Amino acid sequence: MDHPVIAIVGTGAVGAYYGGRLARHGHDVHFLLRRDFPRVKERGWSIRSCDGDFRLAPESIYVYDAPGKMPKADLVIVTLKTTSNDQLEPLVAPLLKDDTLILTLQNGLGNEERLAELFGAQRVLGGMAFVCINRLEAGVIHHMAEGTITLGDFAGVTDERARKIAGMFQSSGIRCRVLDDLRYGRWEKLVWNIPFNGLSAVLDQTTDLLLASAAGEALVRSLMEEVVAAARGAGAELPHTLIDAKIEQTRGMGAYKTSMHLDMQAGRAMEVEAIFGSPVRAAGQAGVATPRLEMLYRLLQLRDADRCHRAENGAG
Amino acid sequence: MDHPVIAIVGTGAVGAYYGGRLARHGHDVHFLLRRDFPRVKERGWSIRSCDGDFRLAPESIYVYDAPGKMPKADLVIVTLKTTSNDQLEPLVAPLLKDDTLILTLQNGLGNEERLAELFGAQRVLGGMAFVCINRLEAGVIHHMAEGTITLGDFAGVTDERARKIAGMFQSSGIRCRVLDDLRYGRWEKLVWNIPFNGLSAVLDQTTDLLLASAAGEALVRSLMEEVVAAARGAGAELPHTLIDAKIEQTRGMGAYKTSMHLDMQAGRAMEVEAIFGSPVRAAGQAGVATPRLEMLYRLLQLRDADRCHRAENGAG
Repeated sequence: MDHPVIAIVGTGAVGAYYGGRLARHGHDVHFLLRRDFPRVKERGWSIRSCDGDFRLAPESIYVYDAPGKMPKADLVIVTLKTTSNDQLEPLVAPLLKDDTLILTLQNGLGNEERLAELFGAQRVLGGMAFVCINRLEAGVIHHMAEGTITLGDFAGVTDERARKIAGMFQSSGIRCRVLDDLRYGRWEKLVWNIPFNGLSAVLDQTTDLLLASAAGEALVRSLMEEVVAAARGAGAELPHTLIDAKIEQTRGMGAYKTSMHLDMQAGRAMEVEAIFGSPVRAAGQAGVATPRLEMLYRLLQLRDADRCHRAENGAG
Repeated sequence: MDHPVIAIVGTGAVGAYYGGRLARHGHDVHFLLRRDFPRVKERGWSIRSCDGDFRLAPESIYVYDAPGKMPKADLVIVTLKTTSNDQLEPLVAPLLKDDTLILTLQNGLGNEERLAELFGAQRVLGGMAFVCINRLEAGVIHHMAEGTITLGDFAGVTDERARKIAGMFQSSGIRCRVLDDLRYGRWEKLVWNIPFNGLSAVLDQTTDLLLASAAGEALVRSLMEEVVAAARGAGAELPHTLIDAKIEQTRGMGAYKTSMHLDMQAGRAMEVEAIFGSPVRAAGQAGVATPRLEMLYRLLQLRDADRCHRAENGAG
């Protein structure tokens, strides 16, 4: 992989931002996108970033609206929204050679497992993007804060491949860290995602409001404690100090809108199964009781059903 | 109490409806109200009822804006919203003689206890109004369905007084039943109020939507099961068949908006402490775990705080 061909599958804000940084640093990046394809094909991307704005001119990037038009890749980076995971096979299969690696940067649990099932565990890596980022409109991305990627090998035998990919990110101006144990990273991220994405979408409240009262902080903590217990059951021992640290870090983020909150407000599909359903099922398999997490999962299913209901009735 | 003087304290839809029926049947009823006083003083009440509309002309009723202007009563019926319970002492005390009885028809747990603390347990009775009723505007009440009152003595020694009051309701065209055990009635009502009032106000959804999916019905059931367990801990053994019955009954109500849902939509205070806080504390004292009920309580505290926040900021 000295000059690897890189494919970004499901290019939204995260895919455009990280793929864009790789492309700017001379990597051979090929973007697969759907909704914004015509606009990006014509005008490229404009990235407004807290680490410095940049543009990707249309003549300098490769964008596609179908995987059959793309070259085979050495590395496929999956940034597809998990609500479209039923499209993974037709989107990724055409890009694969025998030795193609697949790195998923998707949210929640179960994405590596799904890719392993479809394409073989030996080629799968997983990563977490800790980044506050939004698509403002077609072709315009707003990167507000953070940006670190942590990644690890799914099979977990060697981390040589993970280190190579991390090196590629690092040399493109992206903070990146290799994890000893991918499960640890997945569950650590859920300690934040579950209370804040979930409660913000159920209540339509920014993170500062969720933490403004004793009742709110107690609820966030009790959910985080259930996630830590579920993680332990699934083999990932998280330090208990993590809870205080995540709450303090969130206080520093001010009136932040989570991705699920934005999806809810815009009437878009929410990543309920990846962030809530899969952890609930993992906890159940490990025999760990998570009544609050289950309740939040069901509240989000009700919220999501309401979205469909309102769409059908032309309201909201 | 052959011609008892009856005072209605905190006259909203429930107080106007039941007090109105008593007054129409020749009872000596005195209404204390605040917000709608000028309008009702001038024009009386118009009651649109599924059991037959009726009017209470201003010259035929006694309405007051302060308890000091009212006669002492033989029976005080409290229909104050529980969010104003800090006003119970100044509103009720001026109406009392040595043998005045007090019947609270308020929602939730803890109202009889509060009245007993303030005025002595020996004069307190409690009742549940099973009624779908709304205030449409000042002086206009809409009674949509049901209407039965169940009541019992708080001290529980004799039910002679409860039977006398029930007889008075019955002879005024109000279905009324005396309970052997008031606690049973309070908890039975909570089996419905907790899931449906709570979830409707958190999610802004009518009762039919809450029951439209397997996830929703499972969530309603799991909350009802916690309330049944808490009731058992507090000494009220409810039949488990109650849960199926309440769910079926609710399906028959269609797209019903609970009182808490209406309060939430209108930006009014919600009865969070009476319907959720007191039961959570009762379960805690009985050593019964109610994680879902606690979570719903906290979600409603957050929802209620948001109401105050929005009001302060002049938004929706």
